[in-house]
Amino acid sequence: MRVAVLGGGQLGRMLALAGIPLGHRFTFLEPSPDPPAGQLGKVLAAPYDDPGALARIAEAADVVTYEFENVPAASAAFLAARLPVLPPPAALLATQDRLAEKRMFRQLGIPTAPFHPVDSPAQLGAALAATGLPAVIKTRRFGYDGKGQAVVHSAEEAASVQASLGPGLLAERFVDFERELSIVAARGRDGGRVFYPLTENHHRDGILRASRAPAPGVSPELQAVAEDLAGTVMERLEYAGVLAVELFEARGRLLANEVAPRVHNSGHWTLDGADTSQFENHVRAVTGLPPAAPRMAGPAAMLNIVGELPDTAAVAAIPGAHLHLYDKVPRPGRKLGHVNITGGDEAAVGETARRVWALLPGEPSGLPAVPSHGWR
Amino acid sequence: MRVAVLGGGQLGRMLALAGIPLGHRFTFLEPSPDPPAGQLGKVLAAPYDDPGALARIAEAADVVTYEFENVPAASAAFLAARLPVLPPPAALLATQDRLAEKRMFRQLGIPTAPFHPVDSPAQLGAALAATGLPAVIKTRRFGYDGKGQAVVHSAEEAASVQASLGPGLLAERFVDFERELSIVAARGRDGGRVFYPLTENHHRDGILRASRAPAPGVSPELQAVAEDLAGTVMERLEYAGVLAVELFEARGRLLANEVAPRVHNSGHWTLDGADTSQFENHVRAVTGLPPAAPRMAGPAAMLNIVGELPDTAAVAAIPGAHLHLYDKVPRPGRKLGHVNITGGDEAAVGETARRVWALLPGEPSGLPAVPSHGWR
Repeated sequence: MRVAVLGGGQLGRMLALAGIPLGHRFTFLEPSPDPPAGQLGKVLAAPYDDPGALARIAEAADVVTYEFENVPAASAAFLAARLPVLPPPAALLATQDRLAEKRMFRQLGIPTAPFHPVDSPAQLGAALAATGLPAVIKTRRFGYDGKGQAVVHSAEEAASVQASLGPGLLAERFVDFERELSIVAARGRDGGRVFYPLTENHHRDGILRASRAPAPGVSPELQAVAEDLAGTVMERLEYAGVLAVELFEARGRLLANEVAPRVHNSGHWTLDGADTSQFENHVRAVTGLPPAAPRMAGPAAMLNIVGELPDTAAVAAIPGAHLHLYDKVPRPGRKLGHVNITGGDEAAVGETARRVWALLPGEPSGLPAVPSHGWR
Repeated sequence: MRVAVLGGGQLGRMLALAGIPLGHRFTFLEPSPDPPAGQLGKVLAAPYDDPGALARIAEAADVVTYEFENVPAASAAFLAARLPVLPPPAALLATQDRLAEKRMFRQLGIPTAPFHPVDSPAQLGAALAATGLPAVIKTRRFGYDGKGQAVVHSAEEAASVQASLGPGLLAERFVDFERELSIVAARGRDGGRVFYPLTENHHRDGILRASRAPAPGVSPELQAVAEDLAGTVMERLEYAGVLAVELFEARGRLLANEVAPRVHNSGHWTLDGADTSQFENHVRAVTGLPPAAPRMAGPAAMLNIVGELPDTAAVAAIPGAHLHLYDKVPRPGRKLGHVNITGGDEAAVGETARRVWALLPGEPSGLPAVPSHGWR
């Protein structure tokens, strides 16, 4: 099939790397020059709302998917009137607005932190009354990698953050969580669903740095709760493709934070740690194949390469370290690649992760760790 | 690095799919239009001895490799005078001529079937005296997929085959082998070597149809013999890259048949059955990384898709079946893709292979099997 991808970044790159062996050809709509996916198909260099480019995609593709959730609604609607757009545009609408997303969770009976809209300064008091303090004030739209949000400890601080972020905000109770988890799931056009194990994620400066899968210490019951929760969201959205739900684990309970209607950084370990990656499963799902239930040979980890490249030859020389570069020009805070780690038990993966981590420029000494589930 | 590949077929395609995540960019020299590797880099559409195209490669690449052994010697020499050509051109010379190849085996103390050159009708008697009957008469050059050879049972038959094949032949004793095995190995520029397990191969009409890895019933001693043999060849050729040695197993002994100085169809299972594939190891080796010792999670199998496509959706829907298509127009005898099979023990892999095999058009009922090591 001819697959068009809105966005030509590393996610599009890895989608194509997974989809080309299945016999597909790729086209990317991507405004920035020389994008990471550029070697893997045709690039339409145009804005995401360029009518000519959208018309060309409608002619030249059999199915459209996307690698980020901020696809303009009008673009999605234009395309969806002409050919399948998967995941369905409803998934974009439901996840572009954090308030709509939280309300969907609530309607579906999925636990979240207490939240409240903040549309005006007058609403701030009611919002903080609903959430309590400390709270997180965030933009309803376009936030990513920790941008567009701040933790506040007082009404005065909240007012100041509100003034700086502008209108269209959301307040949430700051959750004193034990750790951040995520679940990556896929649903086929036929409704078949598969789930990857809960993954433990570590952020710094709002950017994912490290993931471990399966997250250590997760009971089958907790995994079942997460699968049920992700499954419920997918059913509600009549979903096809891969979806990730970011979660907080607090006192043994899972709170939903947000949904990404796409392949997700916390699922990159599946390229080496599962027999079918999230990228292959996304392509399978949007092209009409059933997603494949992933099999894991053992635990895996993923370390992001952020801002600056390490000695990539030294990384690649470490047994069990699998290098994935995105062909991007280094810039502070930019995700340039990742390293997947496999082989042996959790202790062995942890030891390999430690060796790789030590080679990553700009990262603090010592892997990020959850006290109760530290890297061994 | 900028990697140029001579040839843009499925092997070039899979080299690029493995090399792009390592941060490399690919250019292919390929005379035929719309080649399988065409989506994965720049294609120079020119003959392999085109001076302009070779000059462009010399300018635009950091290293040159190839996906087939019949690279014109003059092209290899031209490029090797200007940039690294790996595996080294000596490997091409040693393997383009089956007589030179057998003589190399003999010099290295590697057992082969008795052989003798047949340069003229007058030499046929001496050749058959050396080999005995039945014998195989084959061209010294350019044979592939069983083309350019015939089994003969009498001097008359031999004379007739000689007349049809023309000059430049080789006679070999027909080996009453139990099965065909191969070993895929990699050697880095620094001399580091890694080996995949011996693989059992099944041909029909001279075309590989099925492989199993590890070949069942192989003792550690036999694996060691094969590694020693492949290692000896790599040292002799001062090799960098992946190399495959095709072998006959006869009465517990290995006889070398031929060497392929490249990634090899019998190593395609490594894409799903090993944590580092032959393609990644080839790219690693020619770009200066050490090859990675492969880890296998369990047994694997590979079934080629030859001549006609199956219902690819039905194949891909079978759990444990991994589809790899080459984006080629179907034609009788043409390799269009392959299916790797993983998951569970040998019996489970065999059962999955049986299900996939039943979907492959034109294949006889029942998987090919070695009586003593049948698919279970």
